[in-house]
Amino acid sequence: MGPLLSHIGNTRLLWLLVFVPVVLAAAKLAPESHTLLFVLSVLAIVPLAALLSHATESVAARTGDAAGGLLNATLGNLTELVIALTALRAGEYMLVKASIAGAIVANTLFMLGVSFLLGGLKYHVQEFNRVSARLQAGLLFLATVALMIPSAVAVSGSEAKAAIVQELSVGLAVLLIVAYALGMLYSLKTHRELFVAGHDGGHAETSWPMGLALATLAGVTLLVALVSEIFVESVQEAAVTFGMTPAFVGFIVVALVGGAAEMASAFSGARKNRLDLSVGIALGSSAQIALFVAPVLVLLSYVIGPVPMDLQFWPGAVMMVLLSTLTAALVTNGGRSTWFVGVLTLMVYTIFAMALYLLPPGTG
Amino acid sequence: MGPLLSHIGNTRLLWLLVFVPVVLAAAKLAPESHTLLFVLSVLAIVPLAALLSHATESVAARTGDAAGGLLNATLGNLTELVIALTALRAGEYMLVKASIAGAIVANTLFMLGVSFLLGGLKYHVQEFNRVSARLQAGLLFLATVALMIPSAVAVSGSEAKAAIVQELSVGLAVLLIVAYALGMLYSLKTHRELFVAGHDGGHAETSWPMGLALATLAGVTLLVALVSEIFVESVQEAAVTFGMTPAFVGFIVVALVGGAAEMASAFSGARKNRLDLSVGIALGSSAQIALFVAPVLVLLSYVIGPVPMDLQFWPGAVMMVLLSTLTAALVTNGGRSTWFVGVLTLMVYTIFAMALYLLPPGTG
Amino acid sequence: MGPLLSHIGNTRLLWLLVFVPVVLAAAKLAPESHTLLFVLSVLAIVPLAALLSHATESVAARTGDAAGGLLNATLGNLTELVIALTALRAGEYMLVKASIAGAIVANTLFMLGVSFLLGGLKYHVQEFNRVSARLQAGLLFLATVALMIPSAVAVSGSEAKAAIVQELSVGLAVLLIVAYALGMLYSLKTHRELFVAGHDGGHAETSWPMGLALATLAGVTLLVALVSEIFVESVQEAAVTFGMTPAFVGFIVVALVGGAAEMASAFSGARKNRLDLSVGIALGSSAQIALFVAPVLVLLSYVIGPVPMDLQFWPGAVMMVLLSTLTAALVTNGGRSTWFVGVLTLMVYTIFAMALYLLPPGTG
Repeated sequence: MGPLLSHIGNTRLLWLLVFVPVVLAAAKLAPESHTLLFVLSVLAIVPLAALLSHATESVAARTGDAAGGLLNATLGNLTELVIALTALRAGEYMLVKASIAGAIVANTLFMLGVSFLLGGLKYHVQEFNRVSARLQAGLLFLATVALMIPSAVAVSGSEAKAAIVQELSVGLAVLLIVAYALGMLYSLKTHRELFVAGHDGGHAETSWPMGLALATLAGVTLLVALVSEIFVESVQEAAVTFGMTPAFVGFIVVALVGGAAEMASAFSGARKNRLDLSVGIALGSSAQIALFVAPVLVLLSYVIGPVPMDLQFWPGAVMMVLLSTLTAALVTNGGRSTWFVGVLTLMVYTIFAMALYLLPPGTG
Repeated sequence: MGPLLSHIGNTRLLWLLVFVPVVLAAAKLAPESHTLLFVLSVLAIVPLAALLSHATESVAARTGDAAGGLLNATLGNLTELVIALTALRAGEYMLVKASIAGAIVANTLFMLGVSFLLGGLKYHVQEFNRVSARLQAGLLFLATVALMIPSAVAVSGSEAKAAIVQELSVGLAVLLIVAYALGMLYSLKTHRELFVAGHDGGHAETSWPMGLALATLAGVTLLVALVSEIFVESVQEAAVTFGMTPAFVGFIVVALVGGAAEMASAFSGARKNRLDLSVGIALGSSAQIALFVAPVLVLLSYVIGPVPMDLQFWPGAVMMVLLSTLTAALVTNGGRSTWFVGVLTLMVYTIFAMALYLLPPGTG
Repeated sequence: MGPLLSHIGNTRLLWLLVFVPVVLAAAKLAPESHTLLFVLSVLAIVPLAALLSHATESVAARTGDAAGGLLNATLGNLTELVIALTALRAGEYMLVKASIAGAIVANTLFMLGVSFLLGGLKYHVQEFNRVSARLQAGLLFLATVALMIPSAVAVSGSEAKAAIVQELSVGLAVLLIVAYALGMLYSLKTHRELFVAGHDGGHAETSWPMGLALATLAGVTLLVALVSEIFVESVQEAAVTFGMTPAFVGFIVVALVGGAAEMASAFSGARKNRLDLSVGIALGSSAQIALFVAPVLVLLSYVIGPVPMDLQFWPGAVMMVLLSTLTAALVTNGGRSTWFVGVLTLMVYTIFAMALYLLPPGTG
């Protein structure tokens, strides 16, 4: 327990952990105060996500490169996965899908854009390994194609449409997971020399003993699951209070809350002129959500959801994912970055956020 | 007055200025001869645009690099702005939008394509600074995203749709102007060393005294405004006579007339193997129209238009702008050009022109 | 006849020629056994296509570089052309269009992807001439724009729509053929030094005497035409037996059968580390079908079809062609390839095949 407590003591973000018991208590005492519960659950999820991320990396660091890379690649977005699973069990499929698409867009545009901007304000020109960026962009492109096809099929409709989209979604889910696995084989094994800066790791400064790391992983995952339940229940009603549309909440708020921990790592990397790290985390997280988290949710929906979930997204969401992928391919193509590249990337994100904020309720 | 008269004497294009009094007189004497007025107003606008462009550059040359760059970047498309303002005041929103989209497409494809072709017929392979081309392509991409979003939101309709699109358009207009301003800060100030060939300048061979330049700027702007009024009034009826659809007129004719002066500069640059200049003018003008002229028109429509104008374009126009931006990104990516690159770019433009020419009246 | 027989004896694929008389006899004896006729005609077309390809190259090799390149560029996809002409004469326009779009997609994704994968499994990293790949990608992009426009115009419908789409299609067909001809002028004449690895040639190891080559060309074309007739008649009914949708048959089966010969050459090139050859065949064939075969079919439909054919494709097909072109541009941009690039490319193809396989009958 020693290293865990000292880690919490040294990391200011983790002081927010105090909100974990507060929100759990508040949910018992005032189950109807949705706005309060929403704010408290956000404040509690952020440090839990940071802790989860640190524990995953500690386990990864202890298990050697290949197994560690694998672990990071599967559990790196555990927070997003747990939140989405909670929403899935509650049958909130629109929220699940909005948060998936939103997480892809937030990681690709917001995380990457802020990293470029913060780094660019400190350093005149920054360089990064574009081989790695291209792999992730390629994987993202594949996932985007996979998300576009069900909508395209659905357009050419017929009464049997829903069944076909469902069957197709399962096929696509399996295919994306296979592509993701082969991508890991490629970057961690057969062509690892091309990916010098490391996949996602490196942001664990001190790693914990195996037992502590595993215990933290299990315990914190449980806490995230409990708090996620409160978050998912309160988020829609709180949105109304704040005057936000459901689309904005799922796409922007949930995505930013779920990704807060990785964002902190990416931004700190950019300010230390380690842009390889920032680009790796941003695009790697996007690819992971698109090719691992989303397909796993589709497959798990057969087990835990009220009805199976498909991969057919709202056309606007598909377009935003496509434009995000194109933006990422464009800005990472040269392997160099300045503050203005960050501004351009963030502007695209702002346009999306603006449109979703103004969207009439019920359209998302 | 001396330098002005000698400049006119030396530049054959400017002999067309004789049509300025002719068209103004004709508008009084034969206000119903729309076809005649259309032809005369085109013949009068082209030399006025050239003069305006020269005066702007003269002022810019006298005010130092930063202020000059700023001036060129804001007044470089003054002709297009004045024509569009005249159409805006007349409530001809379809014409305004068609001419905006058309100007972006014409500059990106026609001006760039002819420059590549003319240059390539004289030189085997030409090179240009691709950093500058990438900045402009990036700005254009951002503007394209901004133009796509209102249509996407509108598709997911509701009765409150129009109000939302209007609100969104104002937000997007402000955002685009901010992006344009930051782009100038980037290319003229913080990273100017990357943009060696200069933004738009260099095509003023002899610059005029400040007083003359300012007086010309004011006087010619007034004349452009007067002639534009005749042009806007006559263009639709003349189109019917020539068998052209309204979409073709706005998108192709108005755009080519408005950009004639810059095209002359870009083509002459290409034939002198100064392709940096040509690419800079072509993509710079496109970016300026997309990120400065269009947003300014949206904001000004609140002051001078009968009703506010939004940024929702006809889906075909959005697609053409998107494909133009993609084409520009593709062909400028390598920083090298041959005659065939020009042919490819012009072919894309020809496809658009062909489709618009055949389009049934009223669809544009 | 000697070289022809020895060529057949040495090439195992050509032993399949025995199926040519078999299928012609079967069509007389059992005209209703659609499934049998379908399988036999596929087995007969594949070796005929290989023979046709060899004969074309032999003629090309004897006529000098420029004329040879021209010949290869016009007759290189003779099999696809003959099959499509047969379907055209039968008025099966949906099959013609599906096979055109399918051939573009199959060459761009399947042929390229398998080449990258096979090459990558043998060599760690492979390089190829990206100038040539960029030319073909540029031509493909142009063709994609040409295919998108009729659908876009048709969307903004009106009763006169069909006539306009038809007129536009003829214009686009002429334009694409001109672009293709200029592309040949560029790569075979004015800038041939940029295209070191040769356009499409090089996979004829021993070339035949002129007379034999011409006689084979004529005779085999006739045989392909005869077998195509059986193939086109049987394919739809056989599809039902195999549980395949018409879209899947046209897009996937016909395209793969028609391109079998080129695929054999491309894959063998990749395994010999001559990736220039593979990329040239894959993208060159795609460009040829998009810019030569498809336009020629539109123009010929006025002569031999029951009614004129237009260039308006099913929106899903247009999207797949667009995504294929984007994928090709993305993966060939760097001029390097590994096995994973092949996997990514093939995955995109698999997604398309999956969607088409599941598509309800009648939607394609």
